[in-house]
Amino acid sequence: MIFGKVIGTVVSTQIDEGIRGRKCLLVQVCNHQGKVSNNYLVAIDLVSAGIGEMALISQGSSARQTEITDKKPVDCVIVGIVDLVEEKNKIIYRKQ
Amino acid sequence: MIFGKVIGTVVSTQIDEGIRGRKCLLVQVCNHQGKVSNNYLVAIDLVSAGIGEMALISQGSSARQTEITDKKPVDCVIVGIVDLVEEKNKIIYRKQ
Amino acid sequence: MIFGKVIGTVVSTQIDEGIRGRKCLLVQVCNHQGKVSNNYLVAIDLVSAGIGEMALISQGSSARQTEITDKKPVDCVIVGIVDLVEEKNKIIYRKQ
Amino acid sequence: MIFGKVIGTVVSTQIDEGIRGRKCLLVQVCNHQGKVSNNYLVAIDLVSAGIGEMALISQGSSARQTEITDKKPVDCVIVGIVDLVEEKNKIIYRKQ
Amino acid sequence: MIFGKVIGTVVSTQIDEGIRGRKCLLVQVCNHQGKVSNNYLVAIDLVSAGIGEMALISQGSSARQTEITDKKPVDCVIVGIVDLVEEKNKIIYRKQ
Repeated sequence: MIFGKVIGTVVSTQIDEGIRGRKCLLVQVCNHQGKVSNNYLVAIDLVSAGIGEMALISQGSSARQTEITDKKPVDCVIVGIVDLVEEKNKIIYRKQ
Repeated sequence: MIFGKVIGTVVSTQIDEGIRGRKCLLVQVCNHQGKVSNNYLVAIDLVSAGIGEMALISQGSSARQTEITDKKPVDCVIVGIVDLVEEKNKIIYRKQ
Repeated sequence: MIFGKVIGTVVSTQIDEGIRGRKCLLVQVCNHQGKVSNNYLVAIDLVSAGIGEMALISQGSSARQTEITDKKPVDCVIVGIVDLVEEKNKIIYRKQ
Repeated sequence: MIFGKVIGTVVSTQIDEGIRGRKCLLVQVCNHQGKVSNNYLVAIDLVSAGIGEMALISQGSSARQTEITDKKPVDCVIVGIVDLVEEKNKIIYRKQ
Repeated sequence: MIFGKVIGTVVSTQIDEGIRGRKCLLVQVCNHQGKVSNNYLVAIDLVSAGIGEMALISQGSSARQTEITDKKPVDCVIVGIVDLVEEKNKIIYRKQ
């Protein structure tokens, strides 16, 4: 999985029926410290992620291994909200 | 999913029979604001996308999770047309 | 799918039996105008592609969704030959 | 597979139930000599990896080919701990 | 598939049981002429590849389409040894 910051919402009405009605979140890929990159993804939310939170992103066929996304044309989901990242016994990220 | 701008059409007559007759659109990968990159993809259209529209692109095996692309050698589809992108309570992209 | 120019052939006798005897083409990844990059791939040919032609390349598990590649350790195939690419009502590539 | 250095732990309580309770390790992608890059991944641990160890990372659907990750939305696992890397008859990495 | 030069061996005793005992080769990704890059992979050997040889590398789920790797957490295999690469009627690589 990679890290991504939830920064917004994407609205699409003309969308494949398998995804219609699902919450599409705008995610900015970031590193383990929450430092954002210039890479943006659209992910289906599985865990009620909030704006500003750091999320764990699962991609590819693994993104379909949930009840919500099973057999849907989805290649990116938010599988978790990061509470804390610890590196070499130091806490380098903590959810606020 | 990633963002892509629909900018044209690709015609291929000598093509795998599983894809023959499907609309192949030329897509330029872009960011959440519609700013295009130098990365181009060819995607099967699932949602009657129009030239100039910003699309949601699904890739890999997820591109085959639709009636049209099931069991076809397709690794890139347009699953939705973006109406609106909202970042931190500001609308940063709106379909015209 | 991505674009690639067919530029040669790869010969391998010591090869997995699932692929043995299949035509392995050397492909140089290119953009929608046929401008080549420094990225090279080896693709199984499904459509009798010729040297110099611009091809549509399908990758990953999608490369196995054909009779020839089904259940074979192949992650890259040529699914079509590009006849024409049209961008914003201009023809920007035409097969010669 | 690629090489990655295990450098920490990621805690997430609001997480997909398929992954809940699994050890999420922070991995910094590295080369065959253990030289780290700026690329960070979160991997499920299958082999009781320790901090500072160099690991073998498997990604994509292959990350789900284990009892622990089967049918889970996981796209990155640690499948092995590297004891030794040998290049052209020289040992260039050895676990300490 | 991509090209890779076989340059060494990786030893791992603390490894997923599905892979245990399999030969893990160190591969340096290269181009069609054998010019190496700074990208390193660990691949399971299917064809008795030797040090210094140029190999064809298959990745992702395609890496599991063999008897040896079926249902194993393996995302990279050597499927062939390159004997010869021919570009525009010139031989640009030949196995020695």
